[in-house]
Amino acid sequence: ESRLPGFATHQTKNAWKFPGGLSDPGENIGSTAVREVFEETGVRSEFRSLLSIRQQHQHPGAFNMSDMYLICRLSPLTYDINFCPHECLRCEWLRVSELAETSSTTPITARVARLLLHGLEHGFDKIDLTMEELPAVYSGTFYQLYHRQLPAKS
Amino acid sequence: ESRLPGFATHQTKNAWKFPGGLSDPGENIGSTAVREVFEETGVRSEFRSLLSIRQQHQHPGAFNMSDMYLICRLSPLTYDINFCPHECLRCEWLRVSELAETSSTTPITARVARLLLHGLEHGFDKIDLTMEELPAVYSGTFYQLYHRQLPAKS
Repeated sequence: ESRLPGFATHQTKNAWKFPGGLSDPGENIGSTAVREVFEETGVRSEFRSLLSIRQQHQHPGAFNMSDMYLICRLSPLTYDINFCPHECLRCEWLRVSELAETSSTTPITARVARLLLHGLEHGFDKIDLTMEELPAVYSGTFYQLYHRQLPAKS
Repeated sequence: ESRLPGFATHQTKNAWKFPGGLSDPGENIGSTAVREVFEETGVRSEFRSLLSIRQQHQHPGAFNMSDMYLICRLSPLTYDINFCPHECLRCEWLRVSELAETSSTTPITARVARLLLHGLEHGFDKIDLTMEELPAVYSGTFYQLYHRQLPAKS
């Protein structure tokens, strides 16, 4: 129980939600998550993995276009909360087990909490998509590829 | 060996690649994959899972914006190839093991072939993100959520 890390959440419409927001142009998925967590909660963190993807059409927050919502797992580097009062009513560290059981949350937050509990109990390799940077063939730049970790090449 | 399914690929710039293309507005990830495979190869198929995500910035095929490339696992319903000569030079069923080893492919195709080989040998649950439809809280519509399969709720 004491090994469970807390996760910063913020409450809108009387529901606990994870911090998050829109990517800036050219920004990597993990960088968006780390930036938004800091802007909304004051907590510094590092990207660990991609956990889940939601596709939703006619999304009101995406100009009624289709929205891709990407859920990352981060590790905290700092713990003190200094939350943004324009974006959050409250901001607290909650136990993942509590978040998985409360009714004061959204279906997707509860689902991700269950996913995290499974990872805490059985290893994060059971829930993570790991990220690797690979060179793009034609442009000389790099891209980020996310998938389940493969065993080392024999 | 004989249990390995083939996978339709198409060749551009002298490299074997999986079929694929841009989503239509409002189209689900899996529906895009099934449609593009049919348009490019004539093969009918069903969506099984999401395998991988690539994020690439300044993408030439995405108007120099950031591109999200989503790689799905499909099951074939038909096997006869009737490929689009405007989009492919050649189109053949290849063994996954062959695709994982050939140098006539792109780094990402070889990687996905290795991922599929791992799934064939150890179970697709080791590589899949499963999809579930959930109701959106505010709009009455449904969204699609992809993550590693969780054990049934106890």
